[in-house]
Amino acid sequence: MVKRLQGFTLNSLLLKAVSLSILKPSMNTEAATKDLIRRLGSGQVWTDEANRYRASMDNLRLSRLPSAVITPVDEEAVGCVLELANQHRVPVTVRGAGSATTGAASPVTGGWVIDLSGWKELQVDPLGQMVYVQPGVTIEAIDQAAAAEGLFFPPDPGSKKYATIGGALATNAGGLRGAKYGVIRDYVLSLEGFLPTGEFVRWGADLRKYVSGFNVRDLWVGSEGMLGVITGAVMRLIPRPATSAVLVASFNNDAGALAAVQSLFRARVQPSILEFLDQQTLACTHAFWKKQAPEKLAALPDPLARALASDPAPALLLIEVDGPADAVKLDLQRIEDLLSQGGGACLRAESADSAETLWTIRRGCSQAMFQLGPDKLNEDIVVPVGSQQALLDYTLALKAETGLATPTFGHAMDGNFHVHIMYDRSTPDQCERARKGIRLLMEKVIELGGAITGEHGIGLAKSPFLELQHSPAEIRAMQAIKNALDPNGILNPDKQFQPCEVWDFPREQVRMPWDH
Amino acid sequence: MVKRLQGFTLNSLLLKAVSLSILKPSMNTEAATKDLIRRLGSGQVWTDEANRYRASMDNLRLSRLPSAVITPVDEEAVGCVLELANQHRVPVTVRGAGSATTGAASPVTGGWVIDLSGWKELQVDPLGQMVYVQPGVTIEAIDQAAAAEGLFFPPDPGSKKYATIGGALATNAGGLRGAKYGVIRDYVLSLEGFLPTGEFVRWGADLRKYVSGFNVRDLWVGSEGMLGVITGAVMRLIPRPATSAVLVASFNNDAGALAAVQSLFRARVQPSILEFLDQQTLACTHAFWKKQAPEKLAALPDPLARALASDPAPALLLIEVDGPADAVKLDLQRIEDLLSQGGGACLRAESADSAETLWTIRRGCSQAMFQLGPDKLNEDIVVPVGSQQALLDYTLALKAETGLATPTFGHAMDGNFHVHIMYDRSTPDQCERARKGIRLLMEKVIELGGAITGEHGIGLAKSPFLELQHSPAEIRAMQAIKNALDPNGILNPDKQFQPCEVWDFPREQVRMPWDH
Repeated sequence: MVKRLQGFTLNSLLLKAVSLSILKPSMNTEAATKDLIRRLGSGQVWTDEANRYRASMDNLRLSRLPSAVITPVDEEAVGCVLELANQHRVPVTVRGAGSATTGAASPVTGGWVIDLSGWKELQVDPLGQMVYVQPGVTIEAIDQAAAAEGLFFPPDPGSKKYATIGGALATNAGGLRGAKYGVIRDYVLSLEGFLPTGEFVRWGADLRKYVSGFNVRDLWVGSEGMLGVITGAVMRLIPRPATSAVLVASFNNDAGALAAVQSLFRARVQPSILEFLDQQTLACTHAFWKKQAPEKLAALPDPLARALASDPAPALLLIEVDGPADAVKLDLQRIEDLLSQGGGACLRAESADSAETLWTIRRGCSQAMFQLGPDKLNEDIVVPVGSQQALLDYTLALKAETGLATPTFGHAMDGNFHVHIMYDRSTPDQCERARKGIRLLMEKVIELGGAITGEHGIGLAKSPFLELQHSPAEIRAMQAIKNALDPNGILNPDKQFQPCEVWDFPREQVRMPWDH
Repeated sequence: MVKRLQGFTLNSLLLKAVSLSILKPSMNTEAATKDLIRRLGSGQVWTDEANRYRASMDNLRLSRLPSAVITPVDEEAVGCVLELANQHRVPVTVRGAGSATTGAASPVTGGWVIDLSGWKELQVDPLGQMVYVQPGVTIEAIDQAAAAEGLFFPPDPGSKKYATIGGALATNAGGLRGAKYGVIRDYVLSLEGFLPTGEFVRWGADLRKYVSGFNVRDLWVGSEGMLGVITGAVMRLIPRPATSAVLVASFNNDAGALAAVQSLFRARVQPSILEFLDQQTLACTHAFWKKQAPEKLAALPDPLARALASDPAPALLLIEVDGPADAVKLDLQRIEDLLSQGGGACLRAESADSAETLWTIRRGCSQAMFQLGPDKLNEDIVVPVGSQQALLDYTLALKAETGLATPTFGHAMDGNFHVHIMYDRSTPDQCERARKGIRLLMEKVIELGGAITGEHGIGLAKSPFLELQHSPAEIRAMQAIKNALDPNGILNPDKQFQPCEVWDFPREQVRMPWDH
């Protein structure tokens, strides 16, 4: 076992490795790999099936075996890999934990995978309120280290326990606190790493203000490993809010909850988290818990348990407010007043434990959805504030049209909703309907002035929709930048700009650490 | 008079126009300009001396006459200008108010200037908490429109009354509130405009979350008009803080004030403004006011007037705190305690009027510096939190070495200090010493882990220092991006990457609207 490579359980891994459609490496790549081993030694280059399989996919589970996996011990080794890759024209894909949902970390053209998940150095500068991290540090670890110094690293994608900062930078990850606190990009001070052509560079500075030269730093962020290899980052931290409080409000229906969201917007309150869960989501969560986890239902406070049990199911808003104690108290009261006026039944968490209990609903609903179909599409679209109801209406129209459930929840304060389409992948007819459903959804989102992705990125899965979001001139400009920085096209090729119909490829049935 | 073109007083303008070293337009440019007039009509294209002179420089006052000034009436006209410019290889420089201090808006290679200062549409979306602006809207106008809706546009460069958002986007302008609220880039949701090659594009979206495609939006911001022409922007607004309060603290010397800044950092308080004014700055402000504006001294509260009059002069911290009333009260008390413990004599402004009085010192000190020399270099460097004292020490070493005064003030919370070098431009020896002084300062700043520019940008003035901040590989990558998006090199050429010794060029003696 290579220590640096973590992730899949070895059993399922070996079981599955045989069923792969293995891309034969070109003669070129074989020779290049030999060259690489000569340069780096075998301790950094892995060509065994198990390591290659583990590095062959991300959470999309679309697997393509690389010819070798490289676990570089230092920057010099990374530079060496890129130098040889350019020389021999070998595709290079960089990966962290592999929790990306879009296939962005899947080495679809084979070649080499650089695995940086083992690069875990972290150093907080408490005076400067910043933290140096290597790309393998998890997002959760950054916030934990920040908390130990009374500081705060707000970005909190659902995968934060596993997701590495390298991947989070590559996808400009978001999360629940986006509306109040922004996303990963808003916390980057400087990045260091390598150009696709192998030169070491540093973008930005460990300073609060900086405008020298072109802002390649923020271009790298979210570029899905296509414009450079990040080997280190300095992230900004902020003072940790003194207190936080949690409130849940149940509404008779989706429209009531979304109208209440609008009233919060109009009142200019700024909750740190405002999660909307629709009726479909809550109906299946209740059904699932009743059957499989009655203890979770029993743990809920009575009024909430009763609301969940009602038929039709309610819609919920789950709210966190943070800041100085007095401000939190006032905000909480204002929010409660606004939601109550909108017909919401509000319930405050009186302690950290009871707050945790309220969050179990949000945490449990993803798993519960599988009641509605064995497979799930999770589309992280965004719509303008004024179009939230129109989006919800459309998820129901889509349900009617496709005959597939479309449970939806999301970060209502920034309009970033996760619309799910539940289907059975083993049924070609359902696949066809799900596939059609996504396209219809994406078209609708664009029609509403929204975005096809708010936090997951494009990768492979959303590549067919790129042209819905961007004009040909915009796409050409992006490609021109790619070609300028990566003239040999070695770094994570065939992502974003090469439409990939992921439906045409099998998915691996492998258990990943974040699977429930 | 062309209404769209505002700015310099016409008298001095006509007076000076004769003394210019006029670049003769190439045959090419002459033919192209004729072509342009044919396409757009003369009402959008100006070839008279007065208009060309006004567009020949920015606040650096390094003048190069363009062949024509274009005031496009719509997007189509902008596209047409770029199309012809590419066809005929005519350099194009875009300008707003021209308050840039670096020569970034100076059309050094001649050609055409597109003046967008007349594009002043503005529309606030109060529900979405954002504002659409055309590039000619001033930063002050944006915040005023936001305020009318209870919203806030925090970026506040000193030039905000004149500076247009187009120019602020091109330079990623900062200001006093950077540490708490960030800079212009942090408020951009989407940009629309033209690629250098003339295609209309839109980067980003009017949404709070968005990760589709490469982030060219943030690459455009701060690229000094070299990568595209911005014709519209949607900026994020935030709820306006309920209250704010102002406090001034005087210290016996610079070291005392900077130590107090460190104590604020350690205590994790977040003032919205924390301005440091050094002893040199206050000595000349006091001397100037005593002589020229005794009424300003008389208006100051007694303890502060006494502190200012002391010899040696004191150093000051000017502080604004904003937020919910209770939080402001607590913060103010905490800050006062910390500063007092550090030997600061604190004075709160008891009303908006008295706050305004305190700010007169900060507003007046720039003008007062001319007591120390008729000409001024204003270097907007940045240093890490821990190196503020080392920087101040160095400004004094520089004063000793060059024999020129180096009064310094700045935004202490983000380490963005304005180090001034006062000299007499008519004295070659002083020029030589000032010129040497800047380079020494820049080298020191880099040695301290800082940045050569925090908010002004590179333009022409800082181009000789670009290689201090960036490695050859970094500069090559930036140039590769420039070449990829602007293959004919028509958009604001010879900026940043072409070191320009601005000392070798005369400066215009022209009165600009922001001159005192």
